[in-house]
Amino acid sequence: MINLNDHIRTIQDFPIPGILFYDITTLIRKGEIFNETINRLADSVESFKPFDAIVAPESRGFIFAAPLATKLNVGLIPIRKPGKLPCKTVSKSYDLEYGTNTIQMDVDALKNGGRILIVDDLLATGGTVEACRSLVEENGGEVAAAVFVIELTSLKGREKIKTKNIVSLLQYE
Amino acid sequence: MINLNDHIRTIQDFPIPGILFYDITTLIRKGEIFNETINRLADSVESFKPFDAIVAPESRGFIFAAPLATKLNVGLIPIRKPGKLPCKTVSKSYDLEYGTNTIQMDVDALKNGGRILIVDDLLATGGTVEACRSLVEENGGEVAAAVFVIELTSLKGREKIKTKNIVSLLQYE
Repeated sequence: MINLNDHIRTIQDFPIPGILFYDITTLIRKGEIFNETINRLADSVESFKPFDAIVAPESRGFIFAAPLATKLNVGLIPIRKPGKLPCKTVSKSYDLEYGTNTIQMDVDALKNGGRILIVDDLLATGGTVEACRSLVEENGGEVAAAVFVIELTSLKGREKIKTKNIVSLLQYE
Repeated sequence: MINLNDHIRTIQDFPIPGILFYDITTLIRKGEIFNETINRLADSVESFKPFDAIVAPESRGFIFAAPLATKLNVGLIPIRKPGKLPCKTVSKSYDLEYGTNTIQMDVDALKNGGRILIVDDLLATGGTVEACRSLVEENGGEVAAAVFVIELTSLKGREKIKTKNIVSLLQYE
């Protein structure tokens, strides 16, 4: 039985001093472990189906969202930093500890609606994911669930996300 | 029979005036088409197997590389912009039309060697991919092949990449 936790590397003081970073590059480096991660993500959202598409923020979100999309046979709608999407976009800004961040989505992506699964590698404070949720729901979609590989429970990100179905594979303080 | 070309959107004057941009967000938006793209990428590299891992540059590269990795049951080694990887890295800088760009890879990723498949969405001038190839081959790996969804043939990127097995699904001038 594969224990995914065994394949997460911890790195002290990244990206800033005092932070213990949970690194997923060691989780995806071996095909068997990467596949098992995707299988468990799929299992963890089984009860929230059906989905019409996955929405995921760049860049690490794509690493898990794209294989999960092909496994579930649904499309992938990328959420990107400003200026990266070539099409007409809708934007959402949200507060960081210092300053703000902005993300964009194709304005047409959800023009026909759709039940959406949000996917990201990490649930920390929840700011990015809540911004994704509001981009989706203000532009024609409905967020059915959000799934993460890692959740940092002490940051209480799940309390910030205005959707009730939130799951994660690995929880750390 | 799905024609992938029907699902590529062209956008005039992106990212700068005079450029016709081939947009893959419409290719990945529907599960059936996204899956077919991944299946064709897998078929196109069949004769170059076996691979130990896929190497791919962020961010759009991850969208195709990650599902191809899980389909082929090999690991994914991400190539990122400076400061994004939490581990000790090796770097490679390369010239752009104006200025230079730098990419990084985990220093340990190929410590045991490995036959590598490079994956990206687009082969344009080939600068990024050639930098990926040299990062791989200077740090213990061997590039078995490189595969792209789109190739802009008039830019002759494949002449810049120092590996002989280069394939693409869709070719445009």
